[in-house]
Amino acid sequence: MDNKTVRRLKAIVKDENVLTELEDRVCYSYDGTFKRGIPAVVVFPANTQEIVQIVKLANEEKIPIFPRGAGTGLSGGSIPQEGGIALVLTRMNKIKEISQEDLLAVVEPGVVVERFHQEVEKLGLFYPPDPASLKTCTMGGNVAENAGGPRAFKYGVTKDYVLGLEVVTPLGEVMRTGGRTVKNVTGYDLTRLLTGSEGTLGIITEITVRLLPKPKDKKTALVIFDTLMDAANTVKAIIYEGVIPATLEIMDKITINCVENHSKIGLPVDAEAILLIEVDGSKNQVQEDIAIIEKVCTANNCRKIEIASLPEDRERLWRARRAVSSAIVQLKPTKISEDATVPRSRIPEMVKRLRAIAEKYRIHLPVFGHAGDGNLHPNILTDKNDPEEMARVEQAVEEIFKAALDLGGTLSGEHGIGVMKKPFMEWELGEVGLDYLRRIKQAVDPNNILNPGKVF
Amino acid sequence: MDNKTVRRLKAIVKDENVLTELEDRVCYSYDGTFKRGIPAVVVFPANTQEIVQIVKLANEEKIPIFPRGAGTGLSGGSIPQEGGIALVLTRMNKIKEISQEDLLAVVEPGVVVERFHQEVEKLGLFYPPDPASLKTCTMGGNVAENAGGPRAFKYGVTKDYVLGLEVVTPLGEVMRTGGRTVKNVTGYDLTRLLTGSEGTLGIITEITVRLLPKPKDKKTALVIFDTLMDAANTVKAIIYEGVIPATLEIMDKITINCVENHSKIGLPVDAEAILLIEVDGSKNQVQEDIAIIEKVCTANNCRKIEIASLPEDRERLWRARRAVSSAIVQLKPTKISEDATVPRSRIPEMVKRLRAIAEKYRIHLPVFGHAGDGNLHPNILTDKNDPEEMARVEQAVEEIFKAALDLGGTLSGEHGIGVMKKPFMEWELGEVGLDYLRRIKQAVDPNNILNPGKVF
Repeated sequence: MDNKTVRRLKAIVKDENVLTELEDRVCYSYDGTFKRGIPAVVVFPANTQEIVQIVKLANEEKIPIFPRGAGTGLSGGSIPQEGGIALVLTRMNKIKEISQEDLLAVVEPGVVVERFHQEVEKLGLFYPPDPASLKTCTMGGNVAENAGGPRAFKYGVTKDYVLGLEVVTPLGEVMRTGGRTVKNVTGYDLTRLLTGSEGTLGIITEITVRLLPKPKDKKTALVIFDTLMDAANTVKAIIYEGVIPATLEIMDKITINCVENHSKIGLPVDAEAILLIEVDGSKNQVQEDIAIIEKVCTANNCRKIEIASLPEDRERLWRARRAVSSAIVQLKPTKISEDATVPRSRIPEMVKRLRAIAEKYRIHLPVFGHAGDGNLHPNILTDKNDPEEMARVEQAVEEIFKAALDLGGTLSGEHGIGVMKKPFMEWELGEVGLDYLRRIKQAVDPNNILNPGKVF
Repeated sequence: MDNKTVRRLKAIVKDENVLTELEDRVCYSYDGTFKRGIPAVVVFPANTQEIVQIVKLANEEKIPIFPRGAGTGLSGGSIPQEGGIALVLTRMNKIKEISQEDLLAVVEPGVVVERFHQEVEKLGLFYPPDPASLKTCTMGGNVAENAGGPRAFKYGVTKDYVLGLEVVTPLGEVMRTGGRTVKNVTGYDLTRLLTGSEGTLGIITEITVRLLPKPKDKKTALVIFDTLMDAANTVKAIIYEGVIPATLEIMDKITINCVENHSKIGLPVDAEAILLIEVDGSKNQVQEDIAIIEKVCTANNCRKIEIASLPEDRERLWRARRAVSSAIVQLKPTKISEDATVPRSRIPEMVKRLRAIAEKYRIHLPVFGHAGDGNLHPNILTDKNDPEEMARVEQAVEEIFKAALDLGGTLSGEHGIGVMKKPFMEWELGEVGLDYLRRIKQAVDPNNILNPGKVF
């Protein structure tokens, strides 16, 4: 990037907020995937007006902008593929308002999700979205990728909580979408269109989210099964009984063994599946629900069910689930975390197909994830420096996507398309759908400035 | 419309499904507003493929298409303003699937909402959206206008239940959006963009909606207040207590008097406000919630609280609310039903301003609606044949919109923009927002075939 442009950027955000040294730029060249792309420059704006100026400059000089938060994404959505400007929004990290009466909050995009959880919960309020990366990922990134998490089964994903946005358009204008009311049908739903658009349709500079009263009570159950089918039938039966747990997580045998081997918490390594079920609500509600769940699990031949009420006991049960990500990388250094999602009823069939794919391509494929909403996380453990194996992995990934679509599912439940799944979009959306997306992108970003090379 | 075109339309849908006589066309010239527009021809397609052919023909000959369901809309969204084709989707009324396991249903756009409610509830399932017109309005119309209803406070509106759509694009291609999973982040959220787009971005030919388990129990409370402030504070306090009722309806004094005068159910005509509160959930949950609500109402000086558990008793309490629409038209023949929505906390201020506006312009303005989500329904009763009064009404409407926006609200909570609110869009969205909408519309409907003159 020529010095003149760098000087102009420094004039906008001040010298210390522009990084040009290679060793600095490398720090902003990756996300949670194994993809890389070194930006020409890294810029840290302080406010909306600075972003407006940067986007206008980028349009003048036809320089791509790659917005990012904490860079924890799992689809390459924030990777600066073509040089250009890495626009880091972490300085914009104010929680501007939390309203107990209107049950909403207004935040800047750089606010870390866990911190936001803590602040609203202090006031007896609740913001459900809880992606695994919540300790580091930002609200802006969550909106851009429409992040989910275990609680999505009962509470929905990020898009179900975004009421309004302030956005800098691809042409560098400030736009407000939605607002402070849950009901709003004034014009097209740009709030939802921008949520999950992976930084390609606008740069999110302010977010208004809906909050809920914090559930008064919680209980957690860890349930062990000798067959995957029993676990699947249990999920089915719980829903038939009219119980919607806050979380309904599943771990397969490979995952169980990795976790036990890694953190020695006494999981039975011969079990075929573990369900981690958490219910929340009023004291009575939780009591009722857990009783039904216990009945259902027993009726479906669970080997063992352990129920915890006290925070420390619940935490102990959660340890198994939380250890998964760090535990499975023992198998191989490179972790490719997929999130192909199928209708709940197809989970057993999907797991069967994943087993077959793992065997066919001789790869490590532990399966865990959110059984409640069919959002499994088949994780491929491999070594990106072994080209022969990576070739097999690529074929396996393709077959995983084919299987998900074949079972009426989707390529991505919560990680987004980014660059990882781009080649497979047409399988799901068809030519017409892709064309419809492209028309929208071209109409609002004629110079293709915002996050080029993503989604399409 | 020339005979050749009519012949081509008849060739597509068969003669008996094309109406050309004036007296027939007049039947499709209106909706729930006082707006009128007579179509050049009325066409009743039987399936997606017929719609594809009709849309292609319309593009060739540059004829506008005005899709409609039952025509119960309250914003003029389905009125054929410029002649053209009134495309009536009521023949496409199959419920294709109800899945208890995946908690979803697949329906054609012409399915009447009440019928859908009945069918899913037979299976112990629940579809929350409940617009007042549910006995006649269609699922397709509900999606196109993103319909709400009393239960939206706890359960959200139509868009919160639409998982996927089959759509005929403005260029006459078939497109599928979303799918059968709650989690889906593959590409932009076209499902949400199309939901509430009032038939301007595509014609909805199939809808996949999410379902919930049917709540096991319900209780209803009718609460009478001597001051509006006490009623408003009660709403606030209930939410502070962490209770989210399924419905939280309010009626002001004028409404109460209309209802009592109309259906003599013994409402106290000197009361300033009535809250109709319904809680649902498990038996215990409902018990708990109603106890809290009773405590809160008493603490906020309610004059009287009546609680009902049995269906017939609850129905009796609901009679007051259900009578409103038919009761208020005693005042004047023309009813203009607005749905300007404000943040919950601003309801008292909004009601105060509405009172002032009614006085200033000497109009009848009963206020009722969904207090839980700030979605009030100020209804202006007037006579469209009295130009002098209509002039005052127009000014009043403008001030109502100004007041809502001024209090951080929106022009429309659930009725849509259609033609009624078009002139005021820019107040809320600004030039940039409107431009963003227009770019999308132009990009996907270059010939401006679908529902021209609406929204913009």
